[in-house]
Amino acid sequence: MISIVVGLIALAVALMLSSAIGKAPAGTARMQEIAGYIHEGAMAFLFREYKALSAFVIVVAIVISMFLSPLTAVCFVAGAVFSVCAGYIGMTVATKANVRTAAAAQHGGMPEALKIAFSGGAVMGLGVVGLGIVGVAAAYMLFGNIDIVTGFGLGASSIALFARVGGGIYTKAADVGADLVGKVEEGLPEDDPRNPATIADNVGDNVGDVAGMGADLFESYVGAIISAITLGAVAYPGGEGIMFVFELAFAGIIASLIGVFYARSSKSTNPQAALNHGTYVGGVIVIAAAYYLSTSIFGNTAAFVAIASGLVVGLLIGKITEIYTSADYASVKKIAEQSETGPATTIISGLAVGMYSTFLPMIFICVGVILAFFTMGGAKDAGMGLFGISLAAVGMLSTTGLTVAVDAYGPIADNAGGIAEMSELPPEVREITDTLDSVGNTTAAIGKGFAIGSAALTALALFSAYAHTVGLKAIDLLNPVTLIGLFIGATLPFVFGAMTMESVGKAAYQMIEEVRRQFHEIPGLLEGKAKADYQKCVDISTAAALHEMIMPGVIAIVAPLLVGFLFGTEALGGLIGGSLASGVLVAILMANAGGAWDNAKKFVEASGRKHTPVHDATVVGDTVGDPFKDTSGPAMNILIKLMTIVSLVFAPVLAANGGILLGLFK
Amino acid sequence: MISIVVGLIALAVALMLSSAIGKAPAGTARMQEIAGYIHEGAMAFLFREYKALSAFVIVVAIVISMFLSPLTAVCFVAGAVFSVCAGYIGMTVATKANVRTAAAAQHGGMPEALKIAFSGGAVMGLGVVGLGIVGVAAAYMLFGNIDIVTGFGLGASSIALFARVGGGIYTKAADVGADLVGKVEEGLPEDDPRNPATIADNVGDNVGDVAGMGADLFESYVGAIISAITLGAVAYPGGEGIMFVFELAFAGIIASLIGVFYARSSKSTNPQAALNHGTYVGGVIVIAAAYYLSTSIFGNTAAFVAIASGLVVGLLIGKITEIYTSADYASVKKIAEQSETGPATTIISGLAVGMYSTFLPMIFICVGVILAFFTMGGAKDAGMGLFGISLAAVGMLSTTGLTVAVDAYGPIADNAGGIAEMSELPPEVREITDTLDSVGNTTAAIGKGFAIGSAALTALALFSAYAHTVGLKAIDLLNPVTLIGLFIGATLPFVFGAMTMESVGKAAYQMIEEVRRQFHEIPGLLEGKAKADYQKCVDISTAAALHEMIMPGVIAIVAPLLVGFLFGTEALGGLIGGSLASGVLVAILMANAGGAWDNAKKFVEASGRKHTPVHDATVVGDTVGDPFKDTSGPAMNILIKLMTIVSLVFAPVLAANGGILLGLFK
Repeated sequence: MISIVVGLIALAVALMLSSAIGKAPAGTARMQEIAGYIHEGAMAFLFREYKALSAFVIVVAIVISMFLSPLTAVCFVAGAVFSVCAGYIGMTVATKANVRTAAAAQHGGMPEALKIAFSGGAVMGLGVVGLGIVGVAAAYMLFGNIDIVTGFGLGASSIALFARVGGGIYTKAADVGADLVGKVEEGLPEDDPRNPATIADNVGDNVGDVAGMGADLFESYVGAIISAITLGAVAYPGGEGIMFVFELAFAGIIASLIGVFYARSSKSTNPQAALNHGTYVGGVIVIAAAYYLSTSIFGNTAAFVAIASGLVVGLLIGKITEIYTSADYASVKKIAEQSETGPATTIISGLAVGMYSTFLPMIFICVGVILAFFTMGGAKDAGMGLFGISLAAVGMLSTTGLTVAVDAYGPIADNAGGIAEMSELPPEVREITDTLDSVGNTTAAIGKGFAIGSAALTALALFSAYAHTVGLKAIDLLNPVTLIGLFIGATLPFVFGAMTMESVGKAAYQMIEEVRRQFHEIPGLLEGKAKADYQKCVDISTAAALHEMIMPGVIAIVAPLLVGFLFGTEALGGLIGGSLASGVLVAILMANAGGAWDNAKKFVEASGRKHTPVHDATVVGDTVGDPFKDTSGPAMNILIKLMTIVSLVFAPVLAANGGILLGLFK
Repeated sequence: MISIVVGLIALAVALMLSSAIGKAPAGTARMQEIAGYIHEGAMAFLFREYKALSAFVIVVAIVISMFLSPLTAVCFVAGAVFSVCAGYIGMTVATKANVRTAAAAQHGGMPEALKIAFSGGAVMGLGVVGLGIVGVAAAYMLFGNIDIVTGFGLGASSIALFARVGGGIYTKAADVGADLVGKVEEGLPEDDPRNPATIADNVGDNVGDVAGMGADLFESYVGAIISAITLGAVAYPGGEGIMFVFELAFAGIIASLIGVFYARSSKSTNPQAALNHGTYVGGVIVIAAAYYLSTSIFGNTAAFVAIASGLVVGLLIGKITEIYTSADYASVKKIAEQSETGPATTIISGLAVGMYSTFLPMIFICVGVILAFFTMGGAKDAGMGLFGISLAAVGMLSTTGLTVAVDAYGPIADNAGGIAEMSELPPEVREITDTLDSVGNTTAAIGKGFAIGSAALTALALFSAYAHTVGLKAIDLLNPVTLIGLFIGATLPFVFGAMTMESVGKAAYQMIEEVRRQFHEIPGLLEGKAKADYQKCVDISTAAALHEMIMPGVIAIVAPLLVGFLFGTEALGGLIGGSLASGVLVAILMANAGGAWDNAKKFVEASGRKHTPVHDATVVGDTVGDPFKDTSGPAMNILIKLMTIVSLVFAPVLAANGGILLGLFK
């Protein structure tokens, strides 16, 4: 109950911040016109997406009612609706905050601009955790049965899939179209108003990085809590486990609120420092709260260690991501250097960086899991140990409100820069927004690392919950059926990655054709005398995103059910394990290779070598990296969580009816 | 015993073929001079590699003597020496056959040239299976203890690692150097004698594709037999299992011999048809023999089904590889089409093809495993079922002699073309060698698919043998220690891939610098008035290959031992499972993306668009694909087999002393 109250407080604060942003000056008429296009484009996408999704949600709800229970279906619908609300709130505010950030940069300078941009992000962050905790806690209070509450997680997961995959395709199609034709072929600067795809590009930042990222972390947050209460109920039949989880979530939200206000009130002219301080303050509060709760509820520090190890692993993964993707470190410089022998070596060295960068995050995840497992219970008390793993996930995600705030700030700053450029604001404004944007790039890369790490831990926790729910005693790789489950599971991220990359390619191709057409057919467009047809480009991205997200979605939902029904719950356990391992690896590879290529290009530009062959080579790398880091890579997070939660939700049916094909061999 | 006799017959036939090749005319003095350079370069590499390896072999042999037994160490050394011999025989003949193929193309036309080239391949193929069966059978006869015989497999595996990784680095450094400077910067044609790296490039074909591939399949062949006799001894304590394995191997060699002579005596002017007919004839004979042996030894057809499913899976994987990498099918054409929007889309679509192409091979491997497991024993009799899986591996590898023959024919034909070009033979000769070479490219791609499939099945069989030997009852993913083993195992192929790609990059960079230096510093080189310093380029490739193969080798051997000692045998089981799944996926992705890029380039060239932007884009794809398909991808085969066999060989020590770190948690 107290969780619901805190969740509502978080939502109230979000509302407050949102209205404060609304009251800030929105700049000139030209700025408001451009911001209006972006807002309309973003809302148009959201509404068309939600329309398409409602059909999907209804069908799945009917299936769930038939095979599981109507209450689970209700939870499923609620999870979907809550996720949609979080996305909607975030997008509304982000598209209000962008133009006001630009205006603040013009009149109030850096601290004011940072305040608005970060407040915009904070609304999304607090919305995610507020809705998340209210939803799960309310569902648990109403139904009291955790099996039913898992439906909420499935709802969140389904929306996340479409938001991430659809958003990723949207944003990259627009980006590639704007860049390849506008920038490369016609030589226009970034965000030039003559470029027909520029509005779609700015919409894409919101669709992909605000709504997509928000839905992804909403899913992780909800999934971690659900798995922790599932396993906590097993470990502590008296209910202390569940109480601990909710109280920790509560503390995390308080910590996020304090962190948000700390960062927001920073008078620092260094935006990175302000964001870091907020994050540290939030982290310290959660650690302290975990210690207090662990000792007071359980009488020992084991749960505290589990929580802390999750939190620390999250921070470490963020740091490693920075090391592999920031131009301040060796990897990016090496890619820039290797680019001197042409685009092929750019690609090879970037892929090598991405592949190398999988190692340390995986090791840290392993260490975190082992620590959480053994301090809580270990092999002697596996139920307790598995609860420990889910607590690590909860720990990592406890400050999600803050993480999302920092993360969603990036696209707002990016948009502010775009609006400043398109409205021809003075160069000093653009300088401020550029500084904000470059900080946003770093936080985005770190946020991606965090999203992967949290997806991995959440999926692991859900995996344990699944095994418990279907009553598996072992998922034994010596059983060839489990082994083929593992193989199929490991293959799915590769297929999923191929599909999403091809989708971006197809959508970008249409966009390129359209932008070229407009330059050819609209007389005076290049000279700035005629207006580009922004709407057409927005439509292309929207239609492509909606169309291309169907197949990956079907696979992610059907594959686990198919394997479960044909080969049984143990093979399905193998599938989840395999997809988890390979999905996390592919996600890290793609995110970090993409980030490193992006920054290698910027590094070469910063050294004054724009329009040299070296720069051309790094542009190729960046273009390959775009679908890597913004579409296919993030889609992996969803894939692994969604397949696991589908398995968890359908666990009762699978336990009773799974393994049809195996029966034939008997 | 009869196996040894048949093995010796195979070796005798290889010797006969080899002396027949030696007697064929070797062409003009100029041709012999060039062939001499290639031969010397190849031998220089082999000797330096073997020198470096002997130190490694001695150290490992001492370690094995100390921790296991001196007899195992003897077997290890024997396995290494036999693998070295197979490589040496293959290389000697290949570097004799290349020039004679060119001469035969000039005087005898297509059928004569095909005969010589294929005979050269057949010597390697028969050498591999002859030495393999003689070695394993003799070790088993002498020591009677299968644990000791596994040392032979480890020896073969160690050499394979260095031959594949070193050979892969050698060949790609030379290739990239020859292409980027000679072809792209200076506009010389392929294999132009003025290009200083051209000899190294031709040596590389032998080092990588003959010796490397041969060692890889030697390892698979030996590994499959060893795991099958290990598991056969469990399933049939009376010895029928072991007898069946050896008799099947015996039948496979006979089938290979017949297939070789069938293909060799073909009068067809279509070389692809000749090779296919030989392969089919061999396959049919093995299938018939398997049926006869299965019914006569076991009184049922279960073993026959297991063998046949392995063989069929091998053929299917080959066919799928062809579909994804040949310009006759849609994937390659799509890459060529996407290349119209530049190199970035070439890369994206090629990677997508590679990722997609993992799906069907994995499914087929799964189906093969399930069929073999359930027809033999299934869950009711798991020991028998696991024997079935190892029989599938033996089935797939039974016609290895033929597969290697077809495969090693490719680089010989490729070399013949190079010699024809460098000796300025008439264009009709080059036309014949080009036809032979293009067939060789297809067989090489199929051979790569086969090598991956066989590595997967062999590693699976070795994995089962490992679990049996350490006495594991389960490898349970619900145990977090196993799960982190799985995660670490899945990560290793990514790290291994990154390392080998970077090695190629470094070595190629040195080569590029050297070739540029020669063009600048040797007056008259470009005009054909001065001679290039081929030796220098050969040295660079050799030194780089030897230096860069150390770290990957260390990792492949140390990682499983470390995990086993720290976390125990079950975690090591997880590691093997994880590396198997992700290693096979990465191997397929890399091999097929590389093959598809290569053929997309050739497709664009064939359509007369050389020196257009589209062609430039496909050249970038091909350059990225080179280390994919010829270095990092094939290295995965070795990695997964080597880590498994290291675990198997050290199983007794690990079972007694493993899991030190776990003890601390207790």
